[in-house]
Amino acid sequence: DKDLYQDNDIAGVVTGLAWTSVGGEILFIETSLSRGKGVLTLSGQLGDVMKESAVTALSYLKAHAERLGIDYRVFNHYDLHVHVPAGAVPKDGPSAGITMLTSMASIFTQRRVKSFVAMTGEITLRGKVLPVGGIKEKILAARRAGVKEIILCVKNKKDVNEVQADYIKDMSFHYVDTVDEVLAAALLPEIVSRPIKFVFPEENKERSGGDGIQAPVVVL
Amino acid sequence: DKDLYQDNDIAGVVTGLAWTSVGGEILFIETSLSRGKGVLTLSGQLGDVMKESAVTALSYLKAHAERLGIDYRVFNHYDLHVHVPAGAVPKDGPSAGITMLTSMASIFTQRRVKSFVAMTGEITLRGKVLPVGGIKEKILAARRAGVKEIILCVKNKKDVNEVQADYIKDMSFHYVDTVDEVLAAALLPEIVSRPIKFVFPEENKERSGGDGIQAPVVVL
Amino acid sequence: DKDLYQDNDIAGVVTGLAWTSVGGEILFIETSLSRGKGVLTLSGQLGDVMKESAVTALSYLKAHAERLGIDYRVFNHYDLHVHVPAGAVPKDGPSAGITMLTSMASIFTQRRVKSFVAMTGEITLRGKVLPVGGIKEKILAARRAGVKEIILCVKNKKDVNEVQADYIKDMSFHYVDTVDEVLAAALLPEIVSRPIKFVFPEENKERSGGDGIQAPVVVL
Amino acid sequence: DKDLYQDNDIAGVVTGLAWTSVGGEILFIETSLSRGKGVLTLSGQLGDVMKESAVTALSYLKAHAERLGIDYRVFNHYDLHVHVPAGAVPKDGPSAGITMLTSMASIFTQRRVKSFVAMTGEITLRGKVLPVGGIKEKILAARRAGVKEIILCVKNKKDVNEVQADYIKDMSFHYVDTVDEVLAAALLPEIVSRPIKFVFPEENKERSGGDGIQAPVVVL
Amino acid sequence: DKDLYQDNDIAGVVTGLAWTSVGGEILFIETSLSRGKGVLTLSGQLGDVMKESAVTALSYLKAHAERLGIDYRVFNHYDLHVHVPAGAVPKDGPSAGITMLTSMASIFTQRRVKSFVAMTGEITLRGKVLPVGGIKEKILAARRAGVKEIILCVKNKKDVNEVQADYIKDMSFHYVDTVDEVLAAALLPEIVSRPIKFVFPEENKERSGGDGIQAPVVVL
Amino acid sequence: DKDLYQDNDIAGVVTGLAWTSVGGEILFIETSLSRGKGVLTLSGQLGDVMKESAVTALSYLKAHAERLGIDYRVFNHYDLHVHVPAGAVPKDGPSAGITMLTSMASIFTQRRVKSFVAMTGEITLRGKVLPVGGIKEKILAARRAGVKEIILCVKNKKDVNEVQADYIKDMSFHYVDTVDEVLAAALLPEIVSRPIKFVFPEENKERSGGDGIQAPVVVL
Ligand SMILES: [Ca+2]
Ligand SMILES: [Ca+2]
Ligand SMILES: [Ca+2]
Ligand SMILES: [Ca+2]
Ligand SMILES: [Ca+2]
Ligand SMILES: [Ca+2]
Ligand SMILES: [Ca+2]
Ligand SMILES: [Ca+2]
Ligand SMILES: [Ca+2]
Ligand SMILES: [Ca+2]
Ligand SMILES: [Ca+2]
Ligand SMILES: [Ca+2]
Repeated sequence: DKDLYQDNDIAGVVTGLAWTSVGGEILFIETSLSRGKGVLTLSGQLGDVMKESAVTALSYLKAHAERLGIDYRVFNHYDLHVHVPAGAVPKDGPSAGITMLTSMASIFTQRRVKSFVAMTGEITLRGKVLPVGGIKEKILAARRAGVKEIILCVKNKKDVNEVQADYIKDMSFHYVDTVDEVLAAALLPEIVSRPIKFVFPEENKERSGGDGIQAPVVVL
Repeated sequence: DKDLYQDNDIAGVVTGLAWTSVGGEILFIETSLSRGKGVLTLSGQLGDVMKESAVTALSYLKAHAERLGIDYRVFNHYDLHVHVPAGAVPKDGPSAGITMLTSMASIFTQRRVKSFVAMTGEITLRGKVLPVGGIKEKILAARRAGVKEIILCVKNKKDVNEVQADYIKDMSFHYVDTVDEVLAAALLPEIVSRPIKFVFPEENKERSGGDGIQAPVVVL
Repeated sequence: DKDLYQDNDIAGVVTGLAWTSVGGEILFIETSLSRGKGVLTLSGQLGDVMKESAVTALSYLKAHAERLGIDYRVFNHYDLHVHVPAGAVPKDGPSAGITMLTSMASIFTQRRVKSFVAMTGEITLRGKVLPVGGIKEKILAARRAGVKEIILCVKNKKDVNEVQADYIKDMSFHYVDTVDEVLAAALLPEIVSRPIKFVFPEENKERSGGDGIQAPVVVL
Repeated sequence: DKDLYQDNDIAGVVTGLAWTSVGGEILFIETSLSRGKGVLTLSGQLGDVMKESAVTALSYLKAHAERLGIDYRVFNHYDLHVHVPAGAVPKDGPSAGITMLTSMASIFTQRRVKSFVAMTGEITLRGKVLPVGGIKEKILAARRAGVKEIILCVKNKKDVNEVQADYIKDMSFHYVDTVDEVLAAALLPEIVSRPIKFVFPEENKERSGGDGIQAPVVVL
Repeated sequence: DKDLYQDNDIAGVVTGLAWTSVGGEILFIETSLSRGKGVLTLSGQLGDVMKESAVTALSYLKAHAERLGIDYRVFNHYDLHVHVPAGAVPKDGPSAGITMLTSMASIFTQRRVKSFVAMTGEITLRGKVLPVGGIKEKILAARRAGVKEIILCVKNKKDVNEVQADYIKDMSFHYVDTVDEVLAAALLPEIVSRPIKFVFPEENKERSGGDGIQAPVVVL
Repeated sequence: DKDLYQDNDIAGVVTGLAWTSVGGEILFIETSLSRGKGVLTLSGQLGDVMKESAVTALSYLKAHAERLGIDYRVFNHYDLHVHVPAGAVPKDGPSAGITMLTSMASIFTQRRVKSFVAMTGEITLRGKVLPVGGIKEKILAARRAGVKEIILCVKNKKDVNEVQADYIKDMSFHYVDTVDEVLAAALLPEIVSRPIKFVFPEENKERSGGDGIQAPVVVL
């Protein structure tokens, strides 16, 4: 399915690498925004750990919005939906953390995601990237899918070094320590061709964060 | 029950194709709108995956409302109910995704659904249509019910090709890659004869999305 | 308990027919309204399917309020409680659908329910009536209780025909296809003797549906 | 514990009769009101059926407030707590229905409860009283506790008649068909000596029922 | 740990007596208030019955606030947290009822708790104190901890009388029937040295109880 | 991973000591703040007891905000997220209590956390520090990680004394009795280099604590 990850003209679609009982495979994180109140919806039969990764990624973006070029009002006046196809396959684990964060950063900034890039790595709330397992199998899956660049934790370098050099000679690897390095490697400076035109109401000076209460996470 | 899917003068009733332990069968997605606050109610003993399909379909329509001709205010000032008869039969799986999305698009736009059409396919949040299983059994069920056109994922074409050509000579197939192609094939440009006359309050300029908080999904 | 279903001077009390492991029996759907915010409360140890029937019935009435002579404001400014005695007996299934809908329509319009009438049938969101099981046992129960007219789906006619003609010679049967036919057969045009005098606040023009958020379904 | 049910100078304390695996026993329903938003709290390790009885009793009082002499505003501006000691003993079943309703009616009207009275019976939403089981055992318990009058459903008369006449010669029985008869027999016209002085805010004309949303039932 | 219960300069710390599988022991109920909306938080791995005790205690204080010298506004404009160390030990049962109520009364009035006092007893909503079990073991634990006075239900007097007289010659016992007697025995008239300076917003005359909705009980 | 706990230029990152089935290990508590409504989010697969520790820590800081130099408005106008990597490892127990409290105090005050310090100890709501288990294993883990100072309960001193003196000759120990002593030992007076510039809306005089309702704890 080469067409899937090559089409980077839609913000918020990022390629991750998963490791399942039947080997490595690529997976896609999709996000969408619609006018709302800041509700976060997660779908795709995600397990608890993966849901926590998504919530942690969102907290990071909120806490660092200004530096990352995100207009803070988007968190209060838009709803965010994160979906991971295929919808019937249960998924879990922390390794999609950086993929989810990149997908959210792309949709909030409307910046394009670099083509032929995939990634895997856990995130922490302060923006560290932690190593994950199954690197060899994930690399095989990425190669089969035509991925050219892989972003992963610097502590996973030793796992890459164990892969036969000849096998990965056409791929480049970004070894990162922080979330900011992930975004630098994965997001392009340019905006998608039909970006969302964000609409914000005039802020009521007496209110800090949008109308009504903080919306709960909707997890089905 | 030919009468069921032929009556396309009610917006929001769309014919899907399901695959159960006893073979293929047609199913109907029904939606209704009533003045409210944006609550989504799902009924018909739907499983988790099917509920996530409905939520994902709604997110897609919200994120692409303008392009699809949907007045955004309807999401905040009306409640949406999606029901799948028969009410006592448990149902699950992602294959009703495009059917649910078409049903919602019909009720929001009040456009008629094409007659004698049935469909099956998973949706993703960015609007891709994914292939599903049980195509042969679903085609048999569609034929028994008098369906003339079937909409399904282009990747399911190979499954259709395995069906005896003589058997499907009176049916036409729409192979689609995206949700937009589904809607183009399934919705007519004309409005139902007694369309809802949407009523919206004057928008309060200081509020972005309706009154009060984002309503939760009601799943029983 | 002849007195129970004969007293039709209370809006919202409707006789249904249930089919349990020990045969057919009559049951009563009771509804009440009190000033509130649109909360729906369901009690009587109802199972999931029966709760979904109630929610679907309410959605139908909301979506067709104007045509059915229901003042829309009642949905926002009153709370609805549906109870099915006896309170300790678990009940489930879709066959009380038309009974629940009739009971709600009676309380919202304050119209009397016809005497000596009982009914059984599933409803769908678009207002179809679907056939249900146990017709023979239900008829026996209705006869024992003195019921004179039974409303049921046209597709259950074949089940009635299997009952010994002599046995049902004093009963009449309404075979219906839609919810509207049910209401036409079950509700009288006249109002109960002490109808609720609905009180509505002056509508705030900037709000579409009452104050605060859509109230959740309360199911114990 | 004669002192317990004799002290009728506290509104909202009513004596019920329960039937457990170890025989009949008396139980006390206690209610309290405090300024709030209409929250209903239930405690005492109550089971689902008993919680539904409480909710049904409250709905009846709300729907008939005017006729019963209850100022409607109390439902929106006060919180109601219903507790059934002893707090660690699980309790369930519908037979405390009329006891709960009487307790609530007493606290809302601040009318005294008659002394030496106990009761048992299920309620329905339209105000019917239904018969319950264990009458013989309950009468024995009432007699041991010094109860002089017992209120129960007219359909339980046959159960009373089976009790040895000599045994109950000092007790009187109220056989009732409706909730209104229960209240007539159990509540005195006089007010408790230190009644709550209800405080209501000036009603905002644009709001129907208090501020904010309808409060949920709090069941622990 | 004599220092623990002797320090009565902090409002809201009260010594209770618990009975576990390994004998009697003392426990501490801690409460804190912070500006908020009336949320009740319970922690310390409390079971259902113990949570209900806390909620019942709070209802009693709300219903009798004026008489007990509690400014009613504190219930709406402050959040109450009740914690029972040690945090990892599961606890349950009704016997901490009077201890919780005393702790809450202390924090709301900022009155000191008497030193060297411990207590055990169930509360009811109308303010009765009910007897509890394990009295002998609890007395032994109290004595080991240096407790001088014990408050318990008058109906537990017989259990105290069974303890060897010589053993308890240095302890005094308060036998109580009501919650008010507990507070009279346990709370000193004086205020703690650094009392909370309660801050209340100007009351909006159109609102009865604070802003927003009644906050739910937060039980983890 | 020496780099992890040495970087004290980020507020809210504090090193704790955990005791698992495979020995002692260091763990990091991370907190972040973003503009919001006072929502508390907990992630990292925390168990019930650990969640209660977090909620108790937050209550302590709220109740003592003024004395601790925390602007009270931050509790209402910012959301707090507490995360404990690694995200897929289940964690529980009360011993991270003082670590969580220190992390929260750091983020709320933006004060730096002292370098090379680790801690372990349960907190109570009144600010006591309670002893915890596994001290020997925790010290070994701290030493392996280069920790120079350890904060723990004075009652754990006997456990430290059992460790071979030579082994800990390069480490210093802070034995504390209260939470305030923990903060004095762990937080530096200086502010992190890029502190959050807190933004508060003009307070509405009629409201006590922010807009809308108290936000619930979000625990996944
Ligand atoms: Ca699931
Ligand atoms: Ca990944
Ligand atoms: Ca279900
Ligand atoms: Ca389908
Ligand atoms: Ca139940
Ligand atoms: Ca029925
Ligand atoms: Ca329970
Ligand atoms: Ca009773
Ligand atoms: Ca627990
Ligand atoms: Ca105790
Ligand atoms: Ca979990
Ligand atoms: Ca720790």
